[in-house]
Amino acid sequence: MARPHPDAGSRGNQYPIPASMKAWVLGGPEELSVVEKPVPEPGPTEVLVRVDAIAVCATDIEIMRHGVPAMIDGGLPFNRGFTPGHEYMGTIVKLGPTVDEFQVGERVTVEVHAGCGRCQRCREGMYTSCLNYGYRAKGHRANGFSTDGGFAEYAVNNINTLAHVPDDMSDAEATLVVTAGTAMCGLDVMGGVIAGEGLTGTRDRRLEMGKRLGADHIVNVGREDAVEAVQRLTGGRGAQYVLECSGAPKALNEAARMVNRGGRICLAAFPADPVPVDLAYLVRNNIYVFGIRGEGKSATHRAAALMAQKRFDAKLIHTHTFSFAEVPTAIRYARERIEDAIKVVVQIRET
Amino acid sequence: MARPHPDAGSRGNQYPIPASMKAWVLGGPEELSVVEKPVPEPGPTEVLVRVDAIAVCATDIEIMRHGVPAMIDGGLPFNRGFTPGHEYMGTIVKLGPTVDEFQVGERVTVEVHAGCGRCQRCREGMYTSCLNYGYRAKGHRANGFSTDGGFAEYAVNNINTLAHVPDDMSDAEATLVVTAGTAMCGLDVMGGVIAGEGLTGTRDRRLEMGKRLGADHIVNVGREDAVEAVQRLTGGRGAQYVLECSGAPKALNEAARMVNRGGRICLAAFPADPVPVDLAYLVRNNIYVFGIRGEGKSATHRAAALMAQKRFDAKLIHTHTFSFAEVPTAIRYARERIEDAIKVVVQIRET
Amino acid sequence: MARPHPDAGSRGNQYPIPASMKAWVLGGPEELSVVEKPVPEPGPTEVLVRVDAIAVCATDIEIMRHGVPAMIDGGLPFNRGFTPGHEYMGTIVKLGPTVDEFQVGERVTVEVHAGCGRCQRCREGMYTSCLNYGYRAKGHRANGFSTDGGFAEYAVNNINTLAHVPDDMSDAEATLVVTAGTAMCGLDVMGGVIAGEGLTGTRDRRLEMGKRLGADHIVNVGREDAVEAVQRLTGGRGAQYVLECSGAPKALNEAARMVNRGGRICLAAFPADPVPVDLAYLVRNNIYVFGIRGEGKSATHRAAALMAQKRFDAKLIHTHTFSFAEVPTAIRYARERIEDAIKVVVQIRET
Amino acid sequence: MARPHPDAGSRGNQYPIPASMKAWVLGGPEELSVVEKPVPEPGPTEVLVRVDAIAVCATDIEIMRHGVPAMIDGGLPFNRGFTPGHEYMGTIVKLGPTVDEFQVGERVTVEVHAGCGRCQRCREGMYTSCLNYGYRAKGHRANGFSTDGGFAEYAVNNINTLAHVPDDMSDAEATLVVTAGTAMCGLDVMGGVIAGEGLTGTRDRRLEMGKRLGADHIVNVGREDAVEAVQRLTGGRGAQYVLECSGAPKALNEAARMVNRGGRICLAAFPADPVPVDLAYLVRNNIYVFGIRGEGKSATHRAAALMAQKRFDAKLIHTHTFSFAEVPTAIRYARERIEDAIKVVVQIRET
Repeated sequence: MARPHPDAGSRGNQYPIPASMKAWVLGGPEELSVVEKPVPEPGPTEVLVRVDAIAVCATDIEIMRHGVPAMIDGGLPFNRGFTPGHEYMGTIVKLGPTVDEFQVGERVTVEVHAGCGRCQRCREGMYTSCLNYGYRAKGHRANGFSTDGGFAEYAVNNINTLAHVPDDMSDAEATLVVTAGTAMCGLDVMGGVIAGEGLTGTRDRRLEMGKRLGADHIVNVGREDAVEAVQRLTGGRGAQYVLECSGAPKALNEAARMVNRGGRICLAAFPADPVPVDLAYLVRNNIYVFGIRGEGKSATHRAAALMAQKRFDAKLIHTHTFSFAEVPTAIRYARERIEDAIKVVVQIRET
Repeated sequence: MARPHPDAGSRGNQYPIPASMKAWVLGGPEELSVVEKPVPEPGPTEVLVRVDAIAVCATDIEIMRHGVPAMIDGGLPFNRGFTPGHEYMGTIVKLGPTVDEFQVGERVTVEVHAGCGRCQRCREGMYTSCLNYGYRAKGHRANGFSTDGGFAEYAVNNINTLAHVPDDMSDAEATLVVTAGTAMCGLDVMGGVIAGEGLTGTRDRRLEMGKRLGADHIVNVGREDAVEAVQRLTGGRGAQYVLECSGAPKALNEAARMVNRGGRICLAAFPADPVPVDLAYLVRNNIYVFGIRGEGKSATHRAAALMAQKRFDAKLIHTHTFSFAEVPTAIRYARERIEDAIKVVVQIRET
Repeated sequence: MARPHPDAGSRGNQYPIPASMKAWVLGGPEELSVVEKPVPEPGPTEVLVRVDAIAVCATDIEIMRHGVPAMIDGGLPFNRGFTPGHEYMGTIVKLGPTVDEFQVGERVTVEVHAGCGRCQRCREGMYTSCLNYGYRAKGHRANGFSTDGGFAEYAVNNINTLAHVPDDMSDAEATLVVTAGTAMCGLDVMGGVIAGEGLTGTRDRRLEMGKRLGADHIVNVGREDAVEAVQRLTGGRGAQYVLECSGAPKALNEAARMVNRGGRICLAAFPADPVPVDLAYLVRNNIYVFGIRGEGKSATHRAAALMAQKRFDAKLIHTHTFSFAEVPTAIRYARERIEDAIKVVVQIRET
Repeated sequence: MARPHPDAGSRGNQYPIPASMKAWVLGGPEELSVVEKPVPEPGPTEVLVRVDAIAVCATDIEIMRHGVPAMIDGGLPFNRGFTPGHEYMGTIVKLGPTVDEFQVGERVTVEVHAGCGRCQRCREGMYTSCLNYGYRAKGHRANGFSTDGGFAEYAVNNINTLAHVPDDMSDAEATLVVTAGTAMCGLDVMGGVIAGEGLTGTRDRRLEMGKRLGADHIVNVGREDAVEAVQRLTGGRGAQYVLECSGAPKALNEAARMVNRGGRICLAAFPADPVPVDLAYLVRNNIYVFGIRGEGKSATHRAAALMAQKRFDAKLIHTHTFSFAEVPTAIRYARERIEDAIKVVVQIRET
């Protein structure tokens, strides 16, 4: 599987690793500047990744404003030169001790969570619920959240967070894998959106899979009522699953009215403040609600595979590209949706 | 398994069935009166049960006030002589066509939902989410909700809603099986509170299983903060599962803070109106929330078995007994918690 | 969803139903003849289907030789004018009482098992394991196994066994849905071959999905060793799932060596006699083995949907077509694989 | 939770750790001798356990004869001074780097498998199927199988393999936890033998839970046919689950005839050589067979909890106790079932 990049030559001098690197870091809220940092050293089960490209995620913008949305300390990243960014891809340039699962020169894309591997949740396979979240010494990593992320020239990644990128997939497209992985994970968590099931519903409803995986820009809720639309499209039977990615205050109540009795809703986004929820409706209709913190269950690997097979074309949502020096502009485009920006990618390493 | 009641003699005349019976029926909200009704006839897959005893459930009180908490029509029971009551037990006195799973003379306790058996949900085993809820002609029954219940001398039950009552279990105790079944179902739905797991936690926390199954009268939230109590009792690790049966407005937010990352909450009760819910907390912590409409997954059978084995003593929560004529008093005791009433039982048939 | 066939006009006289029909019936083993039988009447939850086309399955051939492979009575069909055949499709011409899920004129394809809906297994959603198998009065049907099948002009089907056929799918292709459904069911039972996962492996191994669903004619085990092939194709890591459809005596031992530790094997076929199995290998490697009796878990619906979406082209395996009168020839072609026959279809109603 | 043993005083000198220790080691097959070995050093995520007691398992006897029943190299332990034994308990005397989950002085019992935490199986929570089995540098440990076990004064354990032993549980009883854990794991794997279900069946069949967990000495197959016994005890309905621990050649075929349609069988033992298996029966009856390699799914923790609660009395199966010097005698008693020996315990450290 693992194979060197086409431009790989002799390994000795091919990926010379400098002692220091350029990295964007947070100061106070929304203060971003470039500094020179030491290139980090991969430990056991880790590799050093040369970051080639990174996409801007709405969560990055939240973190720059409010700090990390984690349990232990909301203000975690501020005042410590923290580097945000988690939707990146790149090239492996160094292997940590014992790593033979990957090779130097291999192109990879990343997912966020590397659990500690020793708590009850990790032991159950639920590494995104790691009970040692933020506890670096015990092995937990969430790059761009509790450990340095990808708005830099290099990053260290646990091998469990890596998925292979095929040669014919561009850097920009590969940065979108983790986004697709979150959707895939949501489908998994809801319990068996197995081949044929979700897809069918999608087709019947004139929503292609590609659109579903980026659902927040399909339904024009300015023009039509989402609940009515779903009920109309399903002939009044309602949907079986709803993957909610908007974080809108009324989204959960609406989702509940989109599904049928026994339906399932996955929340992959959320409003900042508590919102009124009609719990009676959920209980009376046997509805299950699954909160997910991103892309667990190795869903990123499945997303990468589907994209490698051209099962859906994530490139459609990629609208803008900037250079490393233009990171603040890239973030502004994503935040303010300038020129109808959807996915904004920063090409860290010029190709 | 199935065996006649000890007082069974020759079958021919043992359970003479009258043409009509006494039944309590609803008029307008909170109007309850006794009428004479025809004894119903069991169809295929059904039996006629002579009701021996019935417990008053908080949901009965809700239904008498506001109608049935179902999807299709909230006001369903009013103005039609509807008989409420779903926590009953009795003796089988007649078998419908093709029934050989039970015998005349057998004592049984009941669960509420008999799905249609033909919709997608029933086909998946989720009969409490039957998509034909309230559609009697297609086979759906929810006695005490969409079809006549147990505040009457006789009731018709689908055989799927029956669990055998052993000879040494009293009528009153048998009425409590469905309550325990709801708790068991909640534990199932949360996914594998398998032998040892839940029980353990319960023990560690000085809450016996018996108490857990009637959780709303254990934690004295007037005297201590429930979240703090759980965190203290679990050494700060939080619980893995919370079964919420109070319907209090703040209960879900509190439950979320009782569980650890990746924890699971089952809602078996609900506040009447929408309440503020901190969805961000649910998503950030990978928390799953399961709404359940009562006692699915055949959990009533397991509850009956545990009670038959004296694994927990439901009799502890049985505080008052009334006669058929005293139904309004029984309901008043339950509603107003007169004399610290917990479970109020009506002995329909004098023994 | 449900819509009349394009050639549907006024309903009154469009599908005139005769009193009797032509049907192939079994005499003794391998004795097949055409008789005139009454057209059956659909009961509640049932419809009458005019059979338009039917495929010959290896199991049909087994049944004609040895009787039905069911628990209760291996010789069930003989000497009673039993009509075999279960891979058929057709047009709904009459609805039983209470049926509104389908319409007259709708084209449908079928799955085999309609559980009783009242035993523990059906209640759990495992209707192919119905504990009342063969007990017609309790609602069980397995057309072509315990009740009359599709080598006839008409058949009665439980609505749970029907899947809609889109207008642009041919009769012949629609007969292949149940075969695909069995494969889909196997994938489900093995536990979450969710979108991306199985597909990926398939691609990596140069086996297209379409080939996987008809696996017995892909691997040329005369030319290469199947275990070595899988190990080679997976880079020595082994497969995660194997769906075994050959029934070869050594197939399970080989499948065990194809999967990795913790791998899963679904047996959808079997050798007639007991065969040596290396149980030590299964236990030491945490391998799970799932026997499946056909197409449960509503997998046929998902297969129909995938085929409607052209996700795989079942037509590739359709090699021969015969007329109603040529049923014995069709069976001979299938049994003896004449002219490399794979799927042999009988067009019951000339189009 | 974690608390020092009652005899714990100041930590500094309480558990002085010598440089070397006495350990039983394998030479050739069935050659066992005592040597002096260095006391091992715990790494990150590990602790040093002073072994207090150990039980003899049938698998130990197999290993002494034939080597380790693992994938990578059947002859692994021979000629390298390997120390067998995996059913031990003891006292934590030293913590590895970063360990704060346990304390020095705490009594613990162990399970076998510490997965690598980095392969696909570990990531899914299936650590007993670790794809890096036997690869010590990547973190895998299976004490008594691929790494040194407990027939020694000290052993190193990954913290994931430890369960707390309460003060009022004897050393001997604590050695039985892992055995119970294997049974618990089997119940889990079969899918939801949730509270009430298994227990019930057990009661109905006059088999207490304690007996079930040690099933091979309940059914006297010399006096009655096991299949007939189960069918008789279940009123002809068959069992839902069978946990097979005998490894007898005909056990799987018998188990298949003990369960009903859709039943499940867990194989926790196996015959040495391939045996004839009636696969047709498994497929026709939708039976699932789960091979398990011991006590995964953290079942040992649940077993420890149940035993701490006196839910079953494992002491009943403890028949003999020997000293460290008598290990060969202990093994002989276990192997030859001398004096009807069931569980033979070696008290490594005199109390």
